[in-house]
Amino acid sequence: MHMMQVMQPVVVLAGGVGAARFLRGLVQVVPPAEIVVIGNTADDIWWHGLYVAPDLDTVCYWLAGIADFERGWGIAGDTFIMQARLGRLTDESWFRLGDRDLATHLYRTGRLRAGVPLDVVTDELRRRLEVASRILPMSNAAITTRLKTDRGDSHFQEYFVRDGCRPAVSGIYWTGLEDATPAPGTIGALEEARAVIIAPSNPIISIGPILRVPGMRHALQAVRERVVAVSPLIGGRAIKGPTVELMQAQDLQADALGVARLYSDIAQGFVLDSADAHQSMRISALGYRVAVLPTLLDDPSLARAVAARALDLAERPVAA
Amino acid sequence: MHMMQVMQPVVVLAGGVGAARFLRGLVQVVPPAEIVVIGNTADDIWWHGLYVAPDLDTVCYWLAGIADFERGWGIAGDTFIMQARLGRLTDESWFRLGDRDLATHLYRTGRLRAGVPLDVVTDELRRRLEVASRILPMSNAAITTRLKTDRGDSHFQEYFVRDGCRPAVSGIYWTGLEDATPAPGTIGALEEARAVIIAPSNPIISIGPILRVPGMRHALQAVRERVVAVSPLIGGRAIKGPTVELMQAQDLQADALGVARLYSDIAQGFVLDSADAHQSMRISALGYRVAVLPTLLDDPSLARAVAARALDLAERPVAA
Repeated sequence: MHMMQVMQPVVVLAGGVGAARFLRGLVQVVPPAEIVVIGNTADDIWWHGLYVAPDLDTVCYWLAGIADFERGWGIAGDTFIMQARLGRLTDESWFRLGDRDLATHLYRTGRLRAGVPLDVVTDELRRRLEVASRILPMSNAAITTRLKTDRGDSHFQEYFVRDGCRPAVSGIYWTGLEDATPAPGTIGALEEARAVIIAPSNPIISIGPILRVPGMRHALQAVRERVVAVSPLIGGRAIKGPTVELMQAQDLQADALGVARLYSDIAQGFVLDSADAHQSMRISALGYRVAVLPTLLDDPSLARAVAARALDLAERPVAA
Repeated sequence: MHMMQVMQPVVVLAGGVGAARFLRGLVQVVPPAEIVVIGNTADDIWWHGLYVAPDLDTVCYWLAGIADFERGWGIAGDTFIMQARLGRLTDESWFRLGDRDLATHLYRTGRLRAGVPLDVVTDELRRRLEVASRILPMSNAAITTRLKTDRGDSHFQEYFVRDGCRPAVSGIYWTGLEDATPAPGTIGALEEARAVIIAPSNPIISIGPILRVPGMRHALQAVRERVVAVSPLIGGRAIKGPTVELMQAQDLQADALGVARLYSDIAQGFVLDSADAHQSMRISALGYRVAVLPTLLDDPSLARAVAARALDLAERPVAA
């Protein structure tokens, strides 16, 4: 076995907290330094002059062990002193940033304004937070998820945080895709990967944008036999976030089977929850090798079991 | 007396803490709503993506009564939680920003990035902080003080904060002056002013940049008989900051007389400290009406006396 084989990474396509929970399990079964995360940046937002990358930060904070694991986002024990004061200056204070968390945004924004690409800054941040896994943005280009709702055209964060997912969504679109390319390192990591895992993240607005980066879907198709998706839905419901609402807005069936259909050209393994075992035959019929087990990830030992099973499905194909 | 006369403002050319101390006295003898501050912005700095305007903020926080009056800058009781964390991410954490203070910088930066001019944002901020006096930047253009030192070419804040004024300064220059114009409202305020007071701020790097904005010096010359300067030097020493060092770097005599020479074409009144009474004859000879009294401003009642005397000198000319 030569060196390159030893270094073959496990690549994870990741959104925010769902992916972070999964990664907390994966690092128990794969050396963290062999993991490469390709993170969604289509939820990123310019907020009062600062560039905030919620999904990249969530993944980084969880892997660094400093996340607020209950709340999901931000840093444990953080304070909101800036936030309280901002609320006295403007009504535009709905996107909450903790004081410790702010340092990340200042650092990143300063570097971006100095012309440093997002992938380099992201790597600097994870190293400073002593995260052994690589974290790559899906692209260095500005790609943004926007929603058409009954309250108007919104950035995803306006719909998600400001409006609490209450508006009815009639359409989803992305800006910035045309000229975008995958971030340096992403395609190479996919080509070299011994396994690629699509984390249990929202397939529309977390994984969807990653797959839409020109070239990304094609690269996944080329390694499809090593790609495994973990369903983010359990019994047709999301643990967190508007997965069901946004799948329905796209006229998709909002359950494990609906998710499996979205990935059938890029993945050959599919992990679904025991609650959805009745769909396993139809998912197999799409060409998947299927694993059925409890996929609730709030406990690190459960996350470890799901990660081990997903990895197993990717690395040692079994008959459907 | 018609309405316009009642509204004739008292205009103050201001740097940071020296001007703020003076203003704390002026608001005791002039209704705050009749005061217009024209503030130095040449010390402003882009700091990790945020636009920070130290002099405008110092003036605003002092007038709002929320300043840290001991330290001079920032907000009383502020915390430095972001700052502590930024120090773990980068060595570039020498410019200190409190957590409450950060809200100002986020608000301002967001508005500037949205295309709102600095004078409008500055007015929004002072209104939100319930400051009755108007605060105008000297210009909406980016004008920056830079120093040539034995450690290289520096932004003023690099010299002042990062290097603690230790480098030897061999030259001072400004960028951005060529295309700059005075901010909206500044020239009109000078034209209408019943009194214009040059605050006891550093004449080189606080007042100097204001006077260098194209058109500003000419506007002051036109109202010279109503302009009074307050010396920032007492016995040839500055209360705070590198006034002496920077005057010497410009080959200027670093005392009250040296300051008076700088303003002799734009002011006809000059307030100097009792310690410098021996220079009053030579300052009078420059064409000034002179007032001599204790000018240490750390006590609000002393600041009130200096403000009253400066105003008196501007409004009711007496024979030299």
